Order: sequence, then structure tokens, then C-alpha cells
Amino acid sequence: MDHGARQKRFAALFRSIEVDAMLVTHMPNVRYLTGFTGSAGTLLASARPVFTTDGRYKVQASQQVQRAKIVVGNGSALASAIKEIRKARIRRLGIESEHMTVATRRILTRELGRGVKLVDTTAAVENLRLIKDRDEVRLIRKAVDLGSKLLPVVTKALKAGKTEASAAARLEFAAREQGAEAMSFETIVAAGARSALPHGVASATRLPRKGFVVLDYGVILEGYCSDMTRTVCIGGATSEQRRVYNAVLEAQLAAIAAVAPGRTVGEVDEAARSVLKRAGLDQYFIHSTGHGVGLEIHESPRVAARQKDLLQPGMVITIEPGVYIGGKFGVRIEDMVLVTERGSEVLTRAPKVLLEL
Amino acid sequence: MDHGARQKRFAALFRSIEVDAMLVTHMPNVRYLTGFTGSAGTLLASARPVFTTDGRYKVQASQQVQRAKIVVGNGSALASAIKEIRKARIRRLGIESEHMTVATRRILTRELGRGVKLVDTTAAVENLRLIKDRDEVRLIRKAVDLGSKLLPVVTKALKAGKTEASAAARLEFAAREQGAEAMSFETIVAAGARSALPHGVASATRLPRKGFVVLDYGVILEGYCSDMTRTVCIGGATSEQRRVYNAVLEAQLAAIAAVAPGRTVGEVDEAARSVLKRAGLDQYFIHSTGHGVGLEIHESPRVAARQKDLLQPGMVITIEPGVYIGGKFGVRIEDMVLVTERGSEVLTRAPKVLLEL
Repeated sequence: MDHGARQKRFAALFRSIEVDAMLVTHMPNVRYLTGFTGSAGTLLASARPVFTTDGRYKVQASQQVQRAKIVVGNGSALASAIKEIRKARIRRLGIESEHMTVATRRILTRELGRGVKLVDTTAAVENLRLIKDRDEVRLIRKAVDLGSKLLPVVTKALKAGKTEASAAARLEFAAREQGAEAMSFETIVAAGARSALPHGVASATRLPRKGFVVLDYGVILEGYCSDMTRTVCIGGATSEQRRVYNAVLEAQLAAIAAVAPGRTVGEVDEAARSVLKRAGLDQYFIHSTGHGVGLEIHESPRVAARQKDLLQPGMVITIEPGVYIGGKFGVRIEDMVLVTERGSEVLTRAPKVLLEL
Repeated sequence: MDHGARQKRFAALFRSIEVDAMLVTHMPNVRYLTGFTGSAGTLLASARPVFTTDGRYKVQASQQVQRAKIVVGNGSALASAIKEIRKARIRRLGIESEHMTVATRRILTRELGRGVKLVDTTAAVENLRLIKDRDEVRLIRKAVDLGSKLLPVVTKALKAGKTEASAAARLEFAAREQGAEAMSFETIVAAGARSALPHGVASATRLPRKGFVVLDYGVILEGYCSDMTRTVCIGGATSEQRRVYNAVLEAQLAAIAAVAPGRTVGEVDEAARSVLKRAGLDQYFIHSTGHGVGLEIHESPRVAARQKDLLQPGMVITIEPGVYIGGKFGVRIEDMVLVTERGSEVLTRAPKVLLEL
């Protein structure tokens, strides 16, 4: 990982956002810029970058942190950062307004006094993270590959009478055994009528003898998240179920086909939505088409209706249309997609035709 | 769960914090007051409480939310909350300053205009959550019991040559199989010299033939967290290891003995620290003695040096002194403890004498 290059690109923004330095407190951003993977630390990014943490992370920081002086005080990472800000005679300090709490900002104002003007910045590091560098794409591929490889583990565990949670347990065990640090989010295994809940996390509900099961999960591997969804059917699908499944699949393929540099995310969303509209199902597609993925499971851009953000090579997004018919069933199909120079590459490698178990 | 009683106790605070209503946005607080377990929702707590969420959670909200009108708009939970705040003609609106970001507060100021004064409150709901009610103690006991029961699963998986992560995987699988929704935090399995890292999350490091292994983990069951640590030894312990282990154990028992209503948390911390001081090990005890646990893994009070908070019946805290000798080994022993009318009750049921594998 070239943390030096990242910090350089970051510092190059300071003039346009009118700050002398940035206090980076959001941990994924701290990790992106320094390599530190712990849960407490700040980066004071300036001409002389300083990383602060607390005593628990002294050894880990010395092993991981790149391109910053490391300060471990007696108090919290923030308390040490405040001392460093004073020492560095910073006049205009950028803070991450989408992550810093109102209470923390108040502490900074009080402790730093009038000499330091706090500047509320938005997405300063996130705008860099939007375009994945080569190292990141490599790690994302690894995470996505592991996710894809695990699909047979979970489908094999889908037996009528077993609980959703026990299928999730088998999946998560295999993920861990194969090196995942954690799951990207609470695993969704939503069967029967529960498949119509877009966020039906695996519950104690027993799997039915017949019906859809939505499987939506991801792994974190070396810090990077994967995210995928497949909908499978226990027993044979009815003709209505098959019709809905195929409409969602067609919508998903249409959205993928719309991904290319220079297109807007809104066009991608519209590509999925218009297929479902022709099938008379658009009123059941109640969320957006996708989102960016990287060190965090939900990153920019939001792939949603009427959004104007332009796709650029190096972005990694999900494409995940779904149809949810309350009380009956739901279907969602999701891949991760890399925006390339010429179009897109689907990273998720798992079959998408309806699997009947 | 008596959500009505909780909301009533909450509303009784409004006069003293000088608000007409509170916008509760921190999800564990929303859950505490309404029962909603999803990831997006707000509670506008006032004479006429309103819960808002987005389309994904429409069905779930109708099944779970207690004692509040449910509003599901086209936009985000926050966008719907803003509309409800306008309708309710609120003049002084409390916000949770330790959870709301600077950016969100800015949106509220802009959207609500001058008619609504935002009041930054601190720990308003958390101060209620500090004292667990009967239902909560019951659920915490269940989570702690499951955690205790899982200790033999993970110790059995500690075989020289296997990875820390694979022991964690077995533990987490069993937790899931037995109903855990998730782990409370990233499982720590830190072996050999890594046991000296207070936050040594399970890694790809292989277990040694001899040495300490720190096991620190917790499960979430029906929303409530458990947290426990045991340090075991693969192979026989050296006399130095045994001496350190016994000093930590003595410190932990002394701290537990100091837990009683009316004592300060600082006294509890001091009880552990003074035992380690007598053993010449206090410089290696580099964190605080414990923390509250409930819907979140880290809650108030902080059981730390010189803190004056008084213990009260119904508080649930961890007692977890540790000694970390960099490059050599570390030991930590942790239980969850309920403060009772007369003293304390140790909830964690797992042996604490040194287990040699």
C-alpha cells in the first residue's frame, strides 16, 4: 500500500478547502491514510503528519502506521491530538463533519480556543477513496472471490426445518476458516414470507419446505468488504415466482450494462427500474440500486434515482435491484462491479440463474 | 419489555434539560425506548411520540415499535423526522450531542429554521440505561450464560499449530448455533507474545506449543451483550507466568469485592491497581478496570482511576484487570458483575484458576 502517495494526494486538497491541517478521526479514513487497523487513533494530517493513539495500541501502531510520527499519551487519542495541534500552531483545522460528533467538536473548540478556527469539511478523504487504487482493487477482488466461493456452503445448509441462523452460522464459520476477519454486515438469510423483508437478518425462523430464500452477505478480508446477494428456491418455484425472479435478473443485467465511465449513477438506477416497470413490478422495488464498497460496506457513490454523480474508472459499486411483495416473497440479486476504462467488470463470480434446491 | 415506562421516565427529564421534545437518533437508544431492532430509525420523543424509518423497515417497524406512531416516508428516517418536528410545533428540541454528527446537526438547523432551537444534550437516554431494569437483567444473564457456556468450545480448539482465527471461528460458530445474533466485538484470541497486546484480535498466527492465550469475547443475545476474558496456558506455565497470573486473579477478586452501592468506580479501580502494585506489576496494567455493558458493549460507567461515579443497584459492569509484558506475555481475567442492593453478583460462570491445556 502506498500510504505516502495517499497522504500526498490528501494534502494537495488543503488549499482548496482552506485548511492548514486536517484532523482525521473516522477510523476507515485513518486506516486508508496510515495503515493502522485498530479501533482508536487519529491522524493530524499536515506538513508533519502525527498519528495519536492510546496505550493499548502502542505496539500495534509502531508495527502498522506509515508516514506519520506516532504519539502515545497517557490519555485518549483525541487528548494527545489536541496537544499536537497546539504544538503545531495550526490556524485553520479541518474536521470531518460527517463523522465528528457535536460533543467532540465542542471539546475541540473549548480546548483549542480562539487561535484555531475549525473548518467543517465534507467527504475530504472519502472523495479520494471513491477511486480505488491498484492495491485496493486487488484486495477487493480477494474479498469478493472469498464471498463467491462461500455460496455453496450456505446453499448446502438450507434444509427445511433448520433455522435461518444455523445456515448463517455455517457460512460465517467457513468465512472465518478461510481467513475473513469478520462479516461485512449482519448476514441476511430470509426465507419464505421473510424474503419480502429487504433487511431480514438471519433469525430463529425455520426454513420452509418450499419458497425463496434471500442470501445477502459479505466478508471482510484484509480490511476490504465484499457484498453479494443471491435468491434461491427451496422446492420448485411457482410460475409467478419464476416470472418475478427473471424480471429482477433482467433488471440487474440491464443496470450492469449501463455501468461505464461518464454515465451517471442515476442512469444505472433507471436502467434497472425501467425493466421492472415494464414487468409491472417497479412499485415493489423500494430501495436504491446500489452503493460503493471498499473499506466500508456503504461508501459513495449512492446508485440511486436521479443522482448525477458520474461513474469513473476505479469505482467499485454494488448492483442489487430487488422486488418485495409483502406477505408473499421477495427476490434480490446483487453483484459487485468495478468501473473500468471501457465499461465495467463484474467481480462477483457466482451463477445467477435460479437455483432450485 | 415495558417501553411505556421507559418513555415516561425519559419524558420526565425534559423539564430539567429544558426541551419540549428529544430527537433520539442513536440506534441503541431508539431500541431501548421503542423495541425497534433495525439499523435506521428515529424517535421523536414528546407528548405524542413518533417513530420514523424508511421503506425497507416498514413491516418490521409495524411488528416491533411500541408506544409511538410510526411514520414511513419516501425518504430517509431523518427526512421524515424533520417533517414531524415541523408539524408538532416544537420550540426547543433536544439532540444527542455525543452521537449526532456535526453535518446532521447542520441539516437540522437549515431545515428547521429559527423557529426551533436545538439543545445539545448529553447522555439523556444513557443515564436511564445506566440502571438496568428487570427485563434487561434477565436478558443480560442469558447472554452472559451463553458466553460462559462457550468457553470449553474455544479452549478445546486451542491446539498448537492451528491458527488463532480458527479457534475464534469455532467459538463464533457455536455461538451462532446457540442463538447469538452476533459477537459483541471482534473476538480476541491472542497467543504467546501476542497475549501482551490488550487488543490482539484473532489473527492468522499459529498457536505455540507453550504459552498464554488470552480469550476475550462476547455474544449478543436478544440485543444484549456479554463480555468475558479468560487467559489459559498451552503447556505448563513457568513460575513467572504463574506468579503474574495469580497476581491478576487476586487483583480481579479484590476489585469485585470492592463493588457495592455507594462506592465509587474509582475505588474499584484502585482495589485492582493496589494489588498489582504490591506485586510490582502495576506499570503493566495500562487500561482501566472495566466498563458498563448492556445494549452496547461499552456503556457507562467507566471503571477507571479517580472516577467519582457512584455504583448503584442495577448497574452491570465488567471487572477486567490485566498485565501486559511487551514481547513476553500478557494476562487478563474478566467477569461481568451486577451491582445489587447489598453488594454485587458475579454473572460470569466460568472457572478462574489457571487452566493448563
